[in-house]
Amino acid sequence: MPADALSAKFAALADPTRRAILARLALGETSVGELAAPFEMSLPAVSKHLKVLENAGLIHRGREAQWRPCRLEPEALKAVDGWLETYRRLWDERLDRLDDYLKELQGKAKKRGRSK
Amino acid sequence: MPADALSAKFAALADPTRRAILARLALGETSVGELAAPFEMSLPAVSKHLKVLENAGLIHRGREAQWRPCRLEPEALKAVDGWLETYRRLWDERLDRLDDYLKELQGKAKKRGRSK
Repeated sequence: MPADALSAKFAALADPTRRAILARLALGETSVGELAAPFEMSLPAVSKHLKVLENAGLIHRGREAQWRPCRLEPEALKAVDGWLETYRRLWDERLDRLDDYLKELQGKAKKRGRSK
Repeated sequence: MPADALSAKFAALADPTRRAILARLALGETSVGELAAPFEMSLPAVSKHLKVLENAGLIHRGREAQWRPCRLEPEALKAVDGWLETYRRLWDERLDRLDDYLKELQGKAKKRGRSK
């Protein structure tokens, strides 16, 4: 079990069913029963996934006895987005370097064209 | 073991040591020995983490017999960034709604101010 909050979020996201549940909840809050329907899974199996998502802070579950609506907590993903920031900068830099290189090649091609 | 590539990436990121290794590699490629130094971990323990990162496509390891430099593959994180896109839109929308609400409150406050 991951000890820190960010690890718990990444671990919760490392499952296609849990990501599908989040995608469904992005459309609006719903019940466990409705969430289970498209997955051909038992309610306890879905509940287990919801528990993981809830512990990671990615969803909120209502406390009403009969109908416990599940709601997405999209802000919880901001920590993941913040972590990505460093790496996003790296791939932007790579693109910039590629762009510079292409301009350099274009420059050389033009010079060669002129010298002919 | 997660079956799909995106799950493998999230699972690899669900560990603070592995994220620290990526942060170190963001500064430039290095050897396993140098990576292990700040973590007070055995080389086999670090190698195990590197294997997970490599299998997820997040790093590349050189095949030189003596010195196997590790290199970050930042583009591999684009899949994670792409997945986040849907949710980023949701929290932007929430901020927009909050903004609308604050403007509405301001409007009401002004009206009240005028009617006094």
